[in-house]
This record gives sequence, structure tokens and C-alpha cells, in this order.
Amino acid sequence: MTEHPLIRLNPGQERRLKSGHPWAFSNEIAMKPEYRQMEPGAPVRLEGDDGWRFGTFAFNPHSLIAARLLDRDPAATIDAAWVRRRLDAAIALRARITDGPFHRLVHAEADGLPGLVIDRYGDVVVLQANTAGMDRLTPAIVATLTGSLPLRAVVARNDAPVRAHEGLPAEVTLLHGSDATAMVEEGGVRFPVDPLSGQKTGWFFDQRPNRDRVAALAEGARVLDVFCHVGAFGLRCAAAGAKEVVLVDASAPALERAQAAAALNGVAGRVSVRRGDAFEVMAEAAQAGERYDIVVCDPPAFAKSKKDQAAGLRAYGRMARVAAPLVSPGGFLFVASCSHHAPLEAFAAAIAEGLYRARRGGRILATCGAGADHPVHPQLPESAYLKGQLFQLD
Amino acid sequence: MTEHPLIRLNPGQERRLKSGHPWAFSNEIAMKPEYRQMEPGAPVRLEGDDGWRFGTFAFNPHSLIAARLLDRDPAATIDAAWVRRRLDAAIALRARITDGPFHRLVHAEADGLPGLVIDRYGDVVVLQANTAGMDRLTPAIVATLTGSLPLRAVVARNDAPVRAHEGLPAEVTLLHGSDATAMVEEGGVRFPVDPLSGQKTGWFFDQRPNRDRVAALAEGARVLDVFCHVGAFGLRCAAAGAKEVVLVDASAPALERAQAAAALNGVAGRVSVRRGDAFEVMAEAAQAGERYDIVVCDPPAFAKSKKDQAAGLRAYGRMARVAAPLVSPGGFLFVASCSHHAPLEAFAAAIAEGLYRARRGGRILATCGAGADHPVHPQLPESAYLKGQLFQLD
Repeated sequence: MTEHPLIRLNPGQERRLKSGHPWAFSNEIAMKPEYRQMEPGAPVRLEGDDGWRFGTFAFNPHSLIAARLLDRDPAATIDAAWVRRRLDAAIALRARITDGPFHRLVHAEADGLPGLVIDRYGDVVVLQANTAGMDRLTPAIVATLTGSLPLRAVVARNDAPVRAHEGLPAEVTLLHGSDATAMVEEGGVRFPVDPLSGQKTGWFFDQRPNRDRVAALAEGARVLDVFCHVGAFGLRCAAAGAKEVVLVDASAPALERAQAAAALNGVAGRVSVRRGDAFEVMAEAAQAGERYDIVVCDPPAFAKSKKDQAAGLRAYGRMARVAAPLVSPGGFLFVASCSHHAPLEAFAAAIAEGLYRARRGGRILATCGAGADHPVHPQLPESAYLKGQLFQLD
Repeated sequence: MTEHPLIRLNPGQERRLKSGHPWAFSNEIAMKPEYRQMEPGAPVRLEGDDGWRFGTFAFNPHSLIAARLLDRDPAATIDAAWVRRRLDAAIALRARITDGPFHRLVHAEADGLPGLVIDRYGDVVVLQANTAGMDRLTPAIVATLTGSLPLRAVVARNDAPVRAHEGLPAEVTLLHGSDATAMVEEGGVRFPVDPLSGQKTGWFFDQRPNRDRVAALAEGARVLDVFCHVGAFGLRCAAAGAKEVVLVDASAPALERAQAAAALNGVAGRVSVRRGDAFEVMAEAAQAGERYDIVVCDPPAFAKSKKDQAAGLRAYGRMARVAAPLVSPGGFLFVASCSHHAPLEAFAAAIAEGLYRARRGGRILATCGAGADHPVHPQLPESAYLKGQLFQLD
């Protein structure tokens, strides 16, 4: 066993790490010239200036987040066997908490694999190695995945912009197999995905339990799915027996995929689409006196950065105000935010204000996050980016 | 139609109510001597000093919360028909969101009936009228309940200490029927309740979805249910196929009821009890090297008042620290708080610190509140008192 190199924090920088936080920032590390020569993502032992041993970290001298916790054990060897233990634990957990091979299999820090995201679509998995540490372990990751699971294909969807922060190139690669097309199955809906194609897969597992919740209310309902993307909420409602589903999105390709999926699932007769700006389409529908038993608003992030926070929160409030008139008395409204920069409490306050301004009373039936296959690191609570609220309106 | 009397806020007190908050405090109201003569809980029209019409409120000159919103309509008549509309809406909602007649049927402000709580145990319902406004409407409430639902008994469990704040006596009364004993059914468990007896019913519906979540992990598991009260979590796990369930509580009567219920459900052979201080029992079990696949810690409120907050949060942290060593590697820990004075973020931070101090890594699988039959008023988010977190520990 070779010991990984030792890196130290600057004096007085131990506090956050001593509370269990899994990152050290570059300005907290006593940078030496030779550190800059190290292979990005290589494992190191991290110690405080006081000698406190924080464990084994992936070190990237070119990243703002310079060290990411791999193992609390300072003597851990980060090799193929270590990767296998981590991945097998993630696989075993999903077998316990999900009911099939369609889920997020690895969710980064919370699964002890910082920056690694893996989604499983049956016998096809799609990984994103968003840190240098995970990028250099990718061969071992692929070997474990193909050894532990009956996989037909492994795709590296390494085109997320965050890779640039780690000095990594943007690329999409087929790492295993020859055909990566796959089919997601969820709640009676089948949805084709092509992880190699230009667009993202289109199916976001994080909203799965929230789709379950909304679909459970959908029998016989008229449903409006706003910011529908490829129509996951609406298609789930249609499969659950909704009488009529209207999908709204600004993207023609997304709506085409939604329509194709509706046909595939035999619900095309009950599903229609409207292309346009969501706020405008909602305002026009309200003007026309349309009312729905269920309205879903799951928009893209309105608060993309910290400086967008105030404007983003106002946009969530406006969304609720514009959506509320479309909900029948006694009907349901589901709103969501995937903005890291819209904390739950502020999001909920913005939504409450929007509903009040629309003069619609009601009640919050559920405040919810992502599913259990998107676990959260206890010391990174802010990584729980997804929040949703289900209302009944009077 | 007779108009309800008009009450005004003091100048400059409109702001909170204008944002939709459903209460006015006594110091915000321009009290006149004749107000003090009004029947506590009688409906009034509330207006701002600027003439803004807030709607129809229940007014109690003897309570700190002097006016509680009944209806945004200032011309509403609060009579038997109004009560029926509100209750029928609450009944219809539960029919949509729950799978049987065992739930919280009315949850106060969120159901538009401020201070009224009604739990349904099949053909027996138990109400708590915790405000003068609901106390005076109780005859109409009972008439609607017995008219709309096939009920054998209606109990007024009016012995909550909060009634004193409204100048109401503590009393437990059978309002309808002759036999109020009942049986809760939940997830394959039957649990006898006697709402007229000295103790509370013992079955808390708010944790229902969290029991579902924990029980789903329980097949073949060894389970430790700490602060078990009458054993709801543990019995659900036993019914779901747990190999062994150990119930821990300080109360001998609670444990006796748990054991009787275990026998009734045919799981007594797999359920044992330990009476004692939960912290001491956990420490001893850890000392003895005991390990469980699932540990549940659902304690009584550690932060009963605002001044208890810091001490309460420390107690939650200590609970997590003492519980962690009892969880097998890869096992699950569910922790909960029913303290109004332990906000979610602070509770989660205390738990995370406790786990870190116990040197146990892991991940948050779910952060959850009460079930949808305990809705939350959008402008009273702090009324969402229950929070729970499910962890997997490494």
C-alpha cells in the first residue's frame, strides 16, 4: 500500500471541515508549487494546520473546490476495490428503496462519490463525472458497473458546464456497448430515451415521488401541465386515468417527444399540446375561462445564481398568481423549483403570496423534495435543490 | 340575513393581515368596552383603520389571538349551512387523499375552521374545539358530522391546555352515541382506541406516511423503536415482516398498550419491550454491542417553548449521537421532532452534528412532514410542527 500524498490546510481553516463538511476550498489550502503539478483529482491525505486528520480527499489544484472528501479514513487506498465498495453500496441501497431498475443510481457526495452522477435506465446507465477525481476513476467505475449489473450500454454524458470548473473537457462518449437507446418505465408510462443524442435524456428521476403524488389524484381529472418539457407529469396523469391532459412548453422538440410518448402509451387521444411562453399561455387560458382539476407548474430554474434570487422568487410568485385562476374550486396545484438559489422557506413564501394575490385560499397538502434515490449529504443540506408544494385551492 | 358586528384594527396594524395572515392579535384591535361584552367566538366583520375589509372572523376578546379568519367574504353568514360547507369540503378532500376512514378529518386553520381538530377512527370521530369560535359552533359541527358520515359516536376531547387561553373549560364529553371505543386500521395493523379514557387515543395520524416509509424497509429487519409510546412505528414494522422489534419507552401503561396491540395483531412473538429512560436504554444497548437494521427515534417535544429552543436542539443532537451506534452499517435511522420551536433547518443541523460526533457517515434519504390529512395554511407555515428525517448510515 502506498500512502497518498499529504496536503495541509492554512492555519485557522479547520473549523468547517471539523464540523464534517466534505469540501476544502483552494484558499483554505496551504498551496505549494509542487501541488500544482499533481494530477488533477488524485487522492491525498488532508490535515489541518494543527495536525487534525480529515481523511482522504480527491485534490484538484485547478478547482475552487480544491479537495473533496472520498473517505474519512486517512489510510484509505483509492483504487478499483474502493470504487467497487462505494458503487455496490449505492446499488444495494437502490434495490431497497426503489421498485425497479429506473432511478438515480449514484448521487455524488451523498453516495460518497463526489461529483459523480449515474442514472439507470434499465440495462443502460448514463454517468456524469463532474469532478477530476471521478473523471480519473471512470475506468474503474465502468468496470464495476458492468460487473455488478446486467448492462447493455454505459454512456458518459460529460457535457455539463460544471466540468469546465475542474478543467475537464465537454464530451459525450459511449464507454460500453453499442446501442444506448433505452426505455424508462415509471408508473405505467414508457418513455424512450437516447442518452447519446444532442438533448438530455428528458426524464428527470428527481420528481418521481411528486409525479406519483399528482398522478394519484388524476383519475377522471382535467390536467394542465405547464413547463411540461417532455410531459412527464402529464403523461403520468394520462396513464393514471386523466380525462384530458394539456401540455404547455416553449420548446417544439420537447412537445414532439411528449406527443410521440403519448402515442406510444396509447393516451394520445387524451393529450394535447400548446406551444408558447408559459405565462402567456396561462393568462390566455384564464382569459378564456378554462379550469382544470390539476395544474402542474414545474419550471426551469428561475433563480440560476445568487444575484438572481430576488427576481427568481418574484417569478415563482407570479407563476402561482397566474396559475391559480386555472385551478377549479377544490382542485389541485403542484408547484416546484429546482433552483439552488431559491431556499424552501423563501420559495414557499413567494408561492403563498402569489396565491393570496390571486385571491385563492387553500391549503398545502405536501411539501416535498426529490426521491430517496437522490440522497442528501448531511453536511450539504443546500444540495437538496428540488422543492415542491402540492396545494388544494378553494 | 343579519350583518355580523364590525370590529376595527388600530391604525397601522393592517400589514400582516393584508399579506393574508388569518389572525389578529388583541393589541392590534381598537378595543371598545362593548367588545368585551360580546359572546366569545362570535362572528364579526374585521376592517382595517383604513377601511380595508379583511372578511369575517371569530372574535374572542379574552384571547391573545383575538380574531381568527372564518371567511374572506365580509358578508358571510356563519351558520349551520356555512359549517356544513366547510366540513363537507374537508370530508371530500380526505376521501381523495386517504385510503380509508382513519385520518385527521379537520386540521384547524388549514381547513378553514380555526382551532378545530377532528380525528376519524372509522365510525367514531373525536373533536377538539380549541377556540371559542369552534366551541360555540360545536352543535352544528356534530349535526353535520352525523349527517354526512355513518358515525356511531362523536367525542369532544376538550381537555387540551390551549382551551384555557380562550377561557374555555377542560372537559371530555360524549356528544353522540353511547360507545366510543374504536379500532384504528393502518398498514395491516389494528389498534384499539378509547377516546373517552383518561389517556389520549395513542394513535397519532401525523406520522402515518413516515410509518409507511419506515415499514417499507422492515422486511426481515431487526428494529429498535425508541420513544415508542404505544409502539406505532414498531408495530407497523412487525406487521411488515420485521424479524424482531424492540420497543423502548419510559411509560409502563404505554408499553402495556403496545404489548396488547402486538398480541391482537399476532406479532407478540417478535415484539419485546424495555422500560426506561430512552437515552439510558440506548447507551446500555450500545455498550452491549446491540445493532439494529432500523432505529426509530420519535421523541416527545424537546423544545416545548421558545426559551427551550437551544436546549431542545442540543437534545435532538444528543439523541442522534446516542442512537447512531445502534444502527448496523447500511442500516436506517429515522428521527423526528414534533417541536413547534425546533425549525426544520436547525433540527437537521443538530441531527447532522450528532451523527458526525458519533463518527457515522451516511445520507439523508427523505426529509418529511405530516401527511396530507394535516394540511398547512399557506400563511401559517410555522404550524407545520412535525419534521422527520430518514437516514441510511454507513
